[in-house]
Amino acid sequence: MEQVKILLNDDEMPRQWYNLAADLPTPMLPPLGPDGQPVTPEKLAPVFPMNLIEQEVSTKRWIDIPDEILQMLALWRPSPLMRARNLEKALGTPARIYYKNEGVSPAGSHKPNTAVAQAWYNKQFGIERLTTETGAGQWGCALAFACSLIGLECKVFMVRISFDQKPFRKLMMGVWGANCIASPSDQTQAGRDILAKMPDTPGSLGMAISEAVEAAVSDSTGKTRYSLGSVLNHVLMHQTVIGLEARTQLKKAGEKQPDVVIGCAGGGSNFAGISFPFVSDKIAGAKIDIVAVEPESCPTLTRGPFVYDHGDVAAMTPLLPMYSLGHAFVPQPIHAGGLRYHGMAPLVSQAVVEGLITPKAYPQLKCYESAVLWARTEGFLPAPETSHAIAAAIDEARKAKETGEEKVILFCWSGHGLMDLAGYDKFFQGKLKDFSLPADELAASLQAVEKFPKAAIRKSGKW
Amino acid sequence: MEQVKILLNDDEMPRQWYNLAADLPTPMLPPLGPDGQPVTPEKLAPVFPMNLIEQEVSTKRWIDIPDEILQMLALWRPSPLMRARNLEKALGTPARIYYKNEGVSPAGSHKPNTAVAQAWYNKQFGIERLTTETGAGQWGCALAFACSLIGLECKVFMVRISFDQKPFRKLMMGVWGANCIASPSDQTQAGRDILAKMPDTPGSLGMAISEAVEAAVSDSTGKTRYSLGSVLNHVLMHQTVIGLEARTQLKKAGEKQPDVVIGCAGGGSNFAGISFPFVSDKIAGAKIDIVAVEPESCPTLTRGPFVYDHGDVAAMTPLLPMYSLGHAFVPQPIHAGGLRYHGMAPLVSQAVVEGLITPKAYPQLKCYESAVLWARTEGFLPAPETSHAIAAAIDEARKAKETGEEKVILFCWSGHGLMDLAGYDKFFQGKLKDFSLPADELAASLQAVEKFPKAAIRKSGKW
Repeated sequence: MEQVKILLNDDEMPRQWYNLAADLPTPMLPPLGPDGQPVTPEKLAPVFPMNLIEQEVSTKRWIDIPDEILQMLALWRPSPLMRARNLEKALGTPARIYYKNEGVSPAGSHKPNTAVAQAWYNKQFGIERLTTETGAGQWGCALAFACSLIGLECKVFMVRISFDQKPFRKLMMGVWGANCIASPSDQTQAGRDILAKMPDTPGSLGMAISEAVEAAVSDSTGKTRYSLGSVLNHVLMHQTVIGLEARTQLKKAGEKQPDVVIGCAGGGSNFAGISFPFVSDKIAGAKIDIVAVEPESCPTLTRGPFVYDHGDVAAMTPLLPMYSLGHAFVPQPIHAGGLRYHGMAPLVSQAVVEGLITPKAYPQLKCYESAVLWARTEGFLPAPETSHAIAAAIDEARKAKETGEEKVILFCWSGHGLMDLAGYDKFFQGKLKDFSLPADELAASLQAVEKFPKAAIRKSGKW
Repeated sequence: MEQVKILLNDDEMPRQWYNLAADLPTPMLPPLGPDGQPVTPEKLAPVFPMNLIEQEVSTKRWIDIPDEILQMLALWRPSPLMRARNLEKALGTPARIYYKNEGVSPAGSHKPNTAVAQAWYNKQFGIERLTTETGAGQWGCALAFACSLIGLECKVFMVRISFDQKPFRKLMMGVWGANCIASPSDQTQAGRDILAKMPDTPGSLGMAISEAVEAAVSDSTGKTRYSLGSVLNHVLMHQTVIGLEARTQLKKAGEKQPDVVIGCAGGGSNFAGISFPFVSDKIAGAKIDIVAVEPESCPTLTRGPFVYDHGDVAAMTPLLPMYSLGHAFVPQPIHAGGLRYHGMAPLVSQAVVEGLITPKAYPQLKCYESAVLWARTEGFLPAPETSHAIAAAIDEARKAKETGEEKVILFCWSGHGLMDLAGYDKFFQGKLKDFSLPADELAASLQAVEKFPKAAIRKSGKW
């Protein structure tokens, strides 16, 4: 029998999160407030608990994972590192393709890795309820699950069009006891203001963030905080268990290191999770191609500039140093909802500026074709987001076939597609098309960022 | 950290299936043809390939699992044996609750364990396509997945009402390349006859079986066979990897043996999978309670007699010796579609007659309550079928709390409920009710079996 699945013993599991901020050749730029000055931890205190803010600004390389969080992660971790032998055979490639299956979590994606950590730190800080927003529902489900384990109330503002069109994610949150509300709602001033102007709006992630933040900071008991599923430093750090496990698993499989590491990138969290430990190896001298795959219709890293911009449409968040298409950019309605984000996590962005990470953009039809080939060879149905990483892995494997190189390819299989079958249906019916972002639309969207301070960093120029 | 997940190394994996027929104290009664005579293997040859028929009639205790099947099973096996510590704490029980998570397979349930085996044996026999029927879609998905791995065509006749109401299962089959057709269809004589009489019929499993069998036996090339997802001896045997793995995993967890083994029982396949290795231990002298849980609305084992009856509504199959509510019995529309079956696998039935297995019937509301408690403590959302096993495990754990016994409870978590969220929704909305089968309805349904030969067996009387 050929080995296809590599697991880890308890004593091989990561006990610390990895913080890339400690190793980046140039220090991270700070987030800026409306006054153009760096945002202090105190200013974030009404939004996040101080123990998470400390992680957010930390430059410590390793941060211990508390035992109680390890205990919760053990419900589905270690996620299996799988060798995609059937796909290798179908492609006739000499490459060895490994994937980290994050679809095995209760919520079906990598998102619970940070959700349980955030819920735990909030509970430790005396917080009693969390608010958040969700688009297609992956993050809302992850936080609902985490809050049910920890014993926190959870309120999720879900973009109305998704709330109406994707009732199953909302139902999942309900099974975990979370309160899922269509946004805009009448429960916040922001929601009421929007509804007064646009009573029939389908909602947007920007509106939902505004409501979730308001619901957290306006609670007079001080026992409510807000939780975010990607972009921020601490969120990315919580995801590094993916890559740390994978690094040990690859060694167990007899591989010295991967030649290529691939993840899809929306806000950046699953990509950071699989790749940051290998970015660290690359900084230390290893030769590894690290590829972030984004949709052609939302080409943040491949066509956006590195600038200071808001993380949300409503311009409520601090200015973050990142690649951005402009905070008011509205991506096309592709099915990979988790990749429809105008910005990119600052840590990922800075590693791209440094040349440590190579971004690539893929059209959605090619991704769906790859997803179907995947399902018919490897069995598991991938999420549309995940299909972007699969498409890039297949391209690398085909390249290796041409050159005859026995490359080791590793990618993050970020989640299953069992709640995304409507997208597959449209694909088979020929109803999907590719979107390429027109240059004038991008230029118009980027005008909004011109007034912000420049995100100038001195690159080390090593990569 | 407390251990919650027990896995197996490659060299600890089962390499053989276990055949309970070898160890039952009384020999199995044969299936009978329309003439009342035992059905010979030759008569089954147009329906099944001879290598599977040999397994069906085998009384060998152990049958080697071919390497290529082991290789496919390795995509998701070993399934984790999990200790439900959060649930134990919530219940305050001294019992140790273990569950075998079969929801980790690509199709989301235990069904692929036999699907890949059946597809492989058919391929070996030179078969090019398989037909089957499916109700809610679990089995159809499993066979579609298996055929895509093996390279067989797959045609699934899906009960029309499910085809219309549950489009996602149909879409899953499509991603794996299977042809899923609403039944009754115009593709078979049986389907056309039914449609001529009842053009608006919602279909039934009985009708779908008729069409699937006809589509297999009427193929003049001789390259098509029929595949069944439960009930038959070889299907149950393929599922014993569940219990064999669990037995080794329990030992790794430091448990000598379980005190109670629980599975939900529809046709009997997941129940047999988890329990038969322990039934074998019980025959050899171990003291183990083995509990089969069925719905109160379809109380085959708890209220049906042990008789000869047909496996399908249309009376096309041989007469099987089993507990039955009568082959024309139509169960109430509970959400646990996989438990809506009038009969029970002959191997399970005979073990019940012998007293080796204790059947229990549960109402659906109690099962949903248990499923929600489960999701909020252990995270994973169970299928409605699985919730029956959970409810019984919780009852055993509460009993252990009363008596103060440190019982070891093992059950089969047969599948996830991500495709069954509509049932949860109705439960939360208070739209579900319990059904108890009226005695006169049962008596009327059983009249049809009175004309069949009696299924008389001499019990050993040991249990």
